[in-house]
Amino acid sequence: MSELRKDPIVDRWVIIAAERGRRPSDFQSEPPPPPPAACPFCPGNEEKTPPEVYAVRDGTPPNSPGWQVRVVPNKFPALAIEGDVTHHGIGLLDWMTGVGAHEVVIESPDHQFRLERADPQHVLKVLQAFDQRLRDLRGDVRFRHIIVFRNWGAAAGASLIHPHSQIIALSIVPDIMKQKLRAARDHYRRKERCIFCDLIEQELALPDRVIYRNEHFVVLSPFAARFPFEVQIYPLAHMYDYTLMSREQQMGLIDALQFVLQRYDAELSDPPYNLMVQTAPNPLPRPGRPEFWGTLQYDFHWHLELIPRLTKPAGFEWGTGFFINPVSPEDAARFLRPPES
Amino acid sequence: MSELRKDPIVDRWVIIAAERGRRPSDFQSEPPPPPPAACPFCPGNEEKTPPEVYAVRDGTPPNSPGWQVRVVPNKFPALAIEGDVTHHGIGLLDWMTGVGAHEVVIESPDHQFRLERADPQHVLKVLQAFDQRLRDLRGDVRFRHIIVFRNWGAAAGASLIHPHSQIIALSIVPDIMKQKLRAARDHYRRKERCIFCDLIEQELALPDRVIYRNEHFVVLSPFAARFPFEVQIYPLAHMYDYTLMSREQQMGLIDALQFVLQRYDAELSDPPYNLMVQTAPNPLPRPGRPEFWGTLQYDFHWHLELIPRLTKPAGFEWGTGFFINPVSPEDAARFLRPPES
Repeated sequence: MSELRKDPIVDRWVIIAAERGRRPSDFQSEPPPPPPAACPFCPGNEEKTPPEVYAVRDGTPPNSPGWQVRVVPNKFPALAIEGDVTHHGIGLLDWMTGVGAHEVVIESPDHQFRLERADPQHVLKVLQAFDQRLRDLRGDVRFRHIIVFRNWGAAAGASLIHPHSQIIALSIVPDIMKQKLRAARDHYRRKERCIFCDLIEQELALPDRVIYRNEHFVVLSPFAARFPFEVQIYPLAHMYDYTLMSREQQMGLIDALQFVLQRYDAELSDPPYNLMVQTAPNPLPRPGRPEFWGTLQYDFHWHLELIPRLTKPAGFEWGTGFFINPVSPEDAARFLRPPES
Repeated sequence: MSELRKDPIVDRWVIIAAERGRRPSDFQSEPPPPPPAACPFCPGNEEKTPPEVYAVRDGTPPNSPGWQVRVVPNKFPALAIEGDVTHHGIGLLDWMTGVGAHEVVIESPDHQFRLERADPQHVLKVLQAFDQRLRDLRGDVRFRHIIVFRNWGAAAGASLIHPHSQIIALSIVPDIMKQKLRAARDHYRRKERCIFCDLIEQELALPDRVIYRNEHFVVLSPFAARFPFEVQIYPLAHMYDYTLMSREQQMGLIDALQFVLQRYDAELSDPPYNLMVQTAPNPLPRPGRPEFWGTLQYDFHWHLELIPRLTKPAGFEWGTGFFINPVSPEDAARFLRPPES
């Protein structure tokens, strides 16, 4: 069983997923991805994955071909779905049982599926799969925070080629999210405004870092981007949670996301990248346990983060938490804007 | 001129080193390292680097062959050595001028030098170069924190093959170091003991994660290691700063460090790795400006961190700050201990 362990000095948690344990020699080289015929995510190979928890189908039976989007538990989960979250400690060391959900969203039956060129109506089904899984997993009171992410390309950590995203539900709120919530709360107390809304307004006024906008979303080159060509996509209307989008807003998100991915492909030649959905932690429905994060999620403003993996964090970055970005965010915005502008 | 920029939401600084700016197409592939004859760190090519700031020489003139260890400013520094640190802000955005030092420690004239198999007396000269540069850079009141690090292998970010370390002096104390200092202060207030000393004592009592020790240093597999086979090396005696080591302690460090690197080489086949020296921030000698970090550095306990680069942080890690480690620290300790034990 995996464990969540806290660093004894700083507030940093790590998942020790020892059932994934390998001997040192197993780290010499990455295993090659399976050939398409053996791809566990291709139609006809449904029995190679755990049974599906969600699928978009036209009347076909579960775990058979005939689906458009399919969500299954990860066959090698970082966290176990069964069991209670129990907390332990010896002296300076703190840990808890590694309970959580780890799911895979298979985005299309097509092994060659490209998110940036797909029919927006199909991408909508993928976004709605995220939405449905977030709603379902939030019903589990053991889970405090859920992240949806997509690794594209081996250099970005994708071990299988068939296009997919992943969902991980955690029993604690990550420190980075707590920092964002604290900043949002402090700003709201002083100004009665959302800090993210203020940032968007400021960036739109001096548009050096605005890459693209449509009616519902804006694509920004972050002022303090850690990575070259890093991008953030924000809903223009204040909205703390991903699942609150209207259908029209979902179509706006698809337009903005496909724009960014097409620009990455054109300017950076199909780079490896990570995509992360940053949405508010789960509400805490348990009466009698008022907790800080239970009420202040409303100050959050959900967004998408995209980082092409073109540079390698090294000793300086790991040792200080500082990043060196060799491309100014203003240059990155200029390169990524629509070619005609 | 480069800039230090703060993320508008969380306390994270980034160095925007735009004079290193490249066009998107420059990121398609890494430039190959120069052939040995053109290696700027090899003897005879001294004019290919900026003039040296330190060298171990037997009477030969500066910037000529005949050195054993040579320290030069980085030819493409992330931070500029000239200028004042000035602070700026517009609305939610904060930045300062990118002033700092960025130096390269060329560890040997030998292009094929291997730190793990070198004569300890030669390694001592490298450690003393770190020591001397730390002392010298601390004389500059603009610098608040200095990190020494070594990237080994292209996958760990080393762009030149010739063995070298780097030193970066920053005008601010990184948040990760502030967190460590806060934890040390809180622990000392409650217990009148160093939190690192307590951790070392606890780990030595239950030696599941002890890899190696000698008279002066202990090598630990961290309880909440982020990476497989991550290692920390601590002086057994409380010592807040790297430059406080006696000659005997320096020889103990060389023994412990060469042990770890030899075990990495044997068990992981010469893996890429990052090595970081975590030492206390600089004292603040300026009268009339008492600041928190000026006095509490004494609670720190300096140490070395080593991370082999065998796994790739992906969307989950970048999105949450959590890491998934597929090797338990206890297994890692077992693999890395001396073979005969």
